[in-house]
Amino acid sequence: MKITRAPAFVWHFRCRPSGYGGQVGGQATLMAIALVCALAITTSFAHAALAAEALAAVADSLPSWNDGAAKQSVVEFVAKVTKEGGPDFVAPAERIAVFDNDGTLWCEQPLPVQLYFALDRVKALAPQHPEWKEKEPFASLLKGDVKTALAGGDHALLELVMATHAGMTTVEFEKIVKDWIATAKHPKTGKLYTEMTYQPMLEVLDYLRANGFKTYIVSGGGIEFMRPWTEKVYGIPPEQVVGSSIKTKFEMRDGKPALVRLPELNFIDDKAGKPVGIHQHIGRRPIAAFGNSVGDQQMLEYTQGGSGARFMLLVLHDDAAREFPYGPARGLPDVKLGAFTPALDGHAKKDGWTVVSMKDDWKQVFAFE
Amino acid sequence: MKITRAPAFVWHFRCRPSGYGGQVGGQATLMAIALVCALAITTSFAHAALAAEALAAVADSLPSWNDGAAKQSVVEFVAKVTKEGGPDFVAPAERIAVFDNDGTLWCEQPLPVQLYFALDRVKALAPQHPEWKEKEPFASLLKGDVKTALAGGDHALLELVMATHAGMTTVEFEKIVKDWIATAKHPKTGKLYTEMTYQPMLEVLDYLRANGFKTYIVSGGGIEFMRPWTEKVYGIPPEQVVGSSIKTKFEMRDGKPALVRLPELNFIDDKAGKPVGIHQHIGRRPIAAFGNSVGDQQMLEYTQGGSGARFMLLVLHDDAAREFPYGPARGLPDVKLGAFTPALDGHAKKDGWTVVSMKDDWKQVFAFE
Repeated sequence: MKITRAPAFVWHFRCRPSGYGGQVGGQATLMAIALVCALAITTSFAHAALAAEALAAVADSLPSWNDGAAKQSVVEFVAKVTKEGGPDFVAPAERIAVFDNDGTLWCEQPLPVQLYFALDRVKALAPQHPEWKEKEPFASLLKGDVKTALAGGDHALLELVMATHAGMTTVEFEKIVKDWIATAKHPKTGKLYTEMTYQPMLEVLDYLRANGFKTYIVSGGGIEFMRPWTEKVYGIPPEQVVGSSIKTKFEMRDGKPALVRLPELNFIDDKAGKPVGIHQHIGRRPIAAFGNSVGDQQMLEYTQGGSGARFMLLVLHDDAAREFPYGPARGLPDVKLGAFTPALDGHAKKDGWTVVSMKDDWKQVFAFE
Repeated sequence: MKITRAPAFVWHFRCRPSGYGGQVGGQATLMAIALVCALAITTSFAHAALAAEALAAVADSLPSWNDGAAKQSVVEFVAKVTKEGGPDFVAPAERIAVFDNDGTLWCEQPLPVQLYFALDRVKALAPQHPEWKEKEPFASLLKGDVKTALAGGDHALLELVMATHAGMTTVEFEKIVKDWIATAKHPKTGKLYTEMTYQPMLEVLDYLRANGFKTYIVSGGGIEFMRPWTEKVYGIPPEQVVGSSIKTKFEMRDGKPALVRLPELNFIDDKAGKPVGIHQHIGRRPIAAFGNSVGDQQMLEYTQGGSGARFMLLVLHDDAAREFPYGPARGLPDVKLGAFTPALDGHAKKDGWTVVSMKDDWKQVFAFE
């Protein structure tokens, strides 16, 4: 959640399964490897047709991507930096790839998932807070009026986050998030939020890891909101998640050592904060960065600023049929949260960043399709 | 460097190589593996004596440790948590081990290494700061009077750190540290600081990693002072280093994106800050923690506070012959920096933490011996 801006936009989402019944990238890769191994062992039995099929499976680790410049740019970059002895070779330890989460790895419309979490927490906590009936942004939220509640801007959003994300231990908060994410469903598709990840991006994560990359999330969202589920959903362990945070304090609670979450901002991992968060957590400059909005621009700039081969990619939400169209670049509808502006589009063009058209470049959009 | 306390103590260091000509743990492990492999291949030629020797090499991954309760506690813990199907088995992903640096992995006497770095930086920068001749703590430092310079306590120390650690980009600072650490020598032993690591602890790092652990440094020292050399010296990559930090700011410098180090504290990774730093960076509670002073107590408490098997260890500097004796626990000389107090000793006893006597438990102390 980018807590420096308040969201306000119109819902255009229409979900339509694509014709492609693709597999999760990791499974596809494993299957390809299994096929190749089987091939090696049973060479004497192999037919030419089978061999060709297996090799094609190996060659395409990105089955949900349409052939085109975007897909090609990813594949060429990976080939370049992994070619031992080549001029662009990068040692595995330096193969750091960073991914924004909201709008890059999973859907952030009509509201970012963490905001739905906060709204549900307000409802759950309301009985303990009778004063909320008269106090904004809670009063409007409890009446189901999100728009009025968030009209208070940054201040309202901050108050909402602190009331729902602080006051408990880190262990308690982790359990709250885990319980919620296991059952909470998207208001329009009825799918679990964790099913509303982008299949082509899951494939990129797997593809990079299969090529020796270490993949990180670098998100404006709360670091402790993401860590409980990123390993299962993205294959990214807690220690490779960078995000916004509130302060914590070490203390004894009921005689046991605990970290208590305080209602005080610690770090905003958005815009110019992203390179700062990357440096703080990783201590190496990434060689590849993936985002979708103005909040990611500095992360991509920072990535590009290093020497040697670099790869920068932005996802453009231009698919009105399968997802939610928003820009306002290229005449797409404007949004206050997660904007891909014409200026960002120009920046991408000038600096040679790959811009992915969800409509044209992705065969399949969501993992659940 | 624990920048919340000022150091002032007497130097008692006498360096004497021990009789043991041990190897770096990683090499020993590799050699053991090579021996076993060779054994498997050449079974038909093997004599019983050779087999016994090779197996003994495998069994002892901690050759610089004397047999005893301390060594036994490490070995038993590792055996317990790695035994598949056993009651204390811990999945590899959860095998997180955290190590303090100063006084736990390398020597912190007569002054912490980072302080020597700061002093050398003051000398190097003095020509650009004629005003330092009249201004403390710089004036005393430039006259070689460290004691008077640091009599100013926290304030003097903070001023010293900011004057020497801020104002440049992160890339520039990394180069300054790398250049310095490559040649700077300990004032008493004449050895490189990176040679003054504790051989038994290097073996523990290797031993844990060979058993599926992920090893982290969690130090009061500056995170960016450690990262440029920890991979080479400890096998710990930058992303697994947690430490104190100053703020950084993303900006364009000469048209290139850079992170500039600001003269403003960001985080003190000491005492109650250590569990906070661990949670922020790793997002998992460690199952093993290694320290040597009151600055590590909360890190060990936090580690012990989780469920399942846990291991906590403190190094006691009681070897007047081979290192520097300091406590003040057990009648050892008092120090202001890196103290192992009688209270900490009592705490360790009460909670079943292993206390390592450098004198009795370590066959060899330094890696350079």
